[in-house]
Amino acid sequence: MTERISSVETIDVRFPTSRHRDGSDAMNPFPDYSAAYVVLRTTSGQEGHGLVFTVGRGTEIQVAAVRSLAGMVVGQPVDELVADPGALARRLVGDSQIRWLGPEKGVVHMAAGGLVNAVWDLAARRAGKPLWKLLADLTPEQLVAQIDFRYLRDALTEDEALGLLRAAAGGRADRERRLLAEGYPAYTTTPGWLGYDDEKLARLCVEAVAAGYDLIKLKVGGDLADDVRRMGIARQAVGPDVRIAVDANQIWGVPEAVDWMRQLSPFDPYWIEEPTSPDDVLGHAAVRRALAPVRVATGEHVHNAVMFKQFLQAGAVDVVQIDACRVGGVNENLAILLLAAKFGVPVCPHAGGVGLCELVQHLAMFDFVAVSGSTDDRAIEYVDHLHEHFVDPVRLRGGRYLAPTAPGMSAEIVAASLTAYRFPDGPEWTVAPTGATADAGEPVTAA
Amino acid sequence: MTERISSVETIDVRFPTSRHRDGSDAMNPFPDYSAAYVVLRTTSGQEGHGLVFTVGRGTEIQVAAVRSLAGMVVGQPVDELVADPGALARRLVGDSQIRWLGPEKGVVHMAAGGLVNAVWDLAARRAGKPLWKLLADLTPEQLVAQIDFRYLRDALTEDEALGLLRAAAGGRADRERRLLAEGYPAYTTTPGWLGYDDEKLARLCVEAVAAGYDLIKLKVGGDLADDVRRMGIARQAVGPDVRIAVDANQIWGVPEAVDWMRQLSPFDPYWIEEPTSPDDVLGHAAVRRALAPVRVATGEHVHNAVMFKQFLQAGAVDVVQIDACRVGGVNENLAILLLAAKFGVPVCPHAGGVGLCELVQHLAMFDFVAVSGSTDDRAIEYVDHLHEHFVDPVRLRGGRYLAPTAPGMSAEIVAASLTAYRFPDGPEWTVAPTGATADAGEPVTAA
Repeated sequence: MTERISSVETIDVRFPTSRHRDGSDAMNPFPDYSAAYVVLRTTSGQEGHGLVFTVGRGTEIQVAAVRSLAGMVVGQPVDELVADPGALARRLVGDSQIRWLGPEKGVVHMAAGGLVNAVWDLAARRAGKPLWKLLADLTPEQLVAQIDFRYLRDALTEDEALGLLRAAAGGRADRERRLLAEGYPAYTTTPGWLGYDDEKLARLCVEAVAAGYDLIKLKVGGDLADDVRRMGIARQAVGPDVRIAVDANQIWGVPEAVDWMRQLSPFDPYWIEEPTSPDDVLGHAAVRRALAPVRVATGEHVHNAVMFKQFLQAGAVDVVQIDACRVGGVNENLAILLLAAKFGVPVCPHAGGVGLCELVQHLAMFDFVAVSGSTDDRAIEYVDHLHEHFVDPVRLRGGRYLAPTAPGMSAEIVAASLTAYRFPDGPEWTVAPTGATADAGEPVTAA
Repeated sequence: MTERISSVETIDVRFPTSRHRDGSDAMNPFPDYSAAYVVLRTTSGQEGHGLVFTVGRGTEIQVAAVRSLAGMVVGQPVDELVADPGALARRLVGDSQIRWLGPEKGVVHMAAGGLVNAVWDLAARRAGKPLWKLLADLTPEQLVAQIDFRYLRDALTEDEALGLLRAAAGGRADRERRLLAEGYPAYTTTPGWLGYDDEKLARLCVEAVAAGYDLIKLKVGGDLADDVRRMGIARQAVGPDVRIAVDANQIWGVPEAVDWMRQLSPFDPYWIEEPTSPDDVLGHAAVRRALAPVRVATGEHVHNAVMFKQFLQAGAVDVVQIDACRVGGVNENLAILLLAAKFGVPVCPHAGGVGLCELVQHLAMFDFVAVSGSTDDRAIEYVDHLHEHFVDPVRLRGGRYLAPTAPGMSAEIVAASLTAYRFPDGPEWTVAPTGATADAGEPVTAA
């Protein structure tokens, strides 16, 4: 009998991270790292796991969207699905009624991405490979067939994509050996959350350098005097040779971004991340022109490949920050990696939150092995929160991600954590002190 | 006792328009015009109505989003709310956890817009004025205070907006008299749905001209030979002096759009609408350069003011098509009207669907009275479907919208229709032949 997808379970799981202001930045003072967590099950008992990362309130909307799209996955023959996840991605993104709610953006697009990623996780498990290796073993033709080029051809054609992949094919085996031996560079945002006091900032900066990081990131944009003081503390703590990136999380308009960053320039910021609205391609280009040689980085909120295409066409970014859960899944991220390679812009993935490190490492490692062929000026973000909830958590050594070897996309959360943190009825929400999704100063929505 | 919002009711209402292929286009072959319908009620029994337009499947996601945001409205003091809907708009759009799901785009942004529009409807009812008149009676300072300029100042500052409004203030009274006497120009899409046969197309074109329209619109992008034939039929039917706009509903990439439209140029198309992805500002600019003097129009899927800002900055559009339900409500549309005025680009609102004509007429009429001061090259889209379900339906005469005079934003659907078309349990869905949300050839989601 044909093996089929028998069910899609979607779970609202929330971690009360706001209680300690982990993850606090200028736009997200009290995040509760959360997920719409997805489990595909097949008629023969196999599973594929995926998640859509969220930050607390509203996760129920994301769950509703995954559940609405799940009907397009249930009943599908598994062999066909894992042989061509791109066909599913096209159906999910292209549904002629649901696309009105996007298209290719926001809740419905992330829901599609969560399901597509779960299918890739299932595909990699069945192949007995970590996802990065599954992808790196596909031929250029197979990879290109996984991408929807409809809106991309003015910047990247199928033939150009094939050319990039073929040019990198020769070195794949050697780079794979290097990846397995040496890992992939990381940078850390752990020291720099806006809610941490100066002492904690300084201590965590010193610890980061001692742990082997040569790039750290600070949140900025709350208060200019605070930022000047904190940048001074961080620069003092790490010395002149460790790079310090800063991240404004969209708090500024274009003129403010330029003015504010000029005040921080004495401390040699490496990049300014999300200086303004993630939709503002032309605004980022203006900020980049004004602030060069400070780099401009964005991506965690760039909602699809069409937007990344324009950021690259307009010369608006120096650093492409893909996110595993923002766009329509692995397939769209393949397109974004190829666009970045075409324009010669390095990819430094966004991570942190819950599960983002676990998922996105596969894409960066695939990029190294099979697309860009380089780790120069590249690093995956690392934050040391919530990894204990994963069955196959990321492993870091000396400031580098070690390549995962377990089959899949590393998305699986341990069952006990799903039970404990399920919202609103898990014991962490019913027994522990409440208030995290109703934090001081924060507007509260009806449950 | 302070009057407060006592409840927010949200209803999933769907009209089975796909049964007759009304509204069929290249991307939406089988739309079921639908809405997440919103009713605010106050402790003194007043109501404000709003809706988020959708096209069938997925409306349940939109409803979930409105319900999640509704907690920020329930309990609010009504006097404060209606005196400053912009404050609510900022809270809804700025919620630090929910904004992760956007920001300012897709399901959560449209949910905010539905609630904000319902507050404006309530405000206008309390003032005893149609919304266009309520807005036109606000001072330039009051209007500017309703807009969030955070991401707009590189294109439009508060002072520039004040200047535009003050310059138009002198002529307000005269233009209001003209509006009440003559109405506002309309154009019609009724003839041109892709699912209509040639005979129906020709007949409806002739009827449109006889009814007074000097601009009609045809859907294109399904099949080139069909489009050439249909454009020929339409041009023959309306003669050389009636303008024919065409609408591709995002079906093409940039090079395809240019190639396809060159085949239609012998029929003198007035504008090409949505030639490609609504996110592709630079793509639209390229299409516009290649196809001039054919105009480029877009907006029904342009998800916020930051995107409109860039379309204008990049010289990517000739026609700004605001939509009453796509962005964050009246407040964000005020910003878009002012941006269009600043750049000297005419606004021709998107309408049709269900309720879009009713709502957006208020914005266009306000624009004429208090912002642009002109109806030159401007017209509101008109489609003759589903108006019978509205308490205060649009009225057209001689190809023009007559100014509504009833208090409010004309959003209220008659109670019997809400009951009959409620999904999935209204009698139109349980008794009538099913299949509309599960139409032939269409993927189906779980309920």
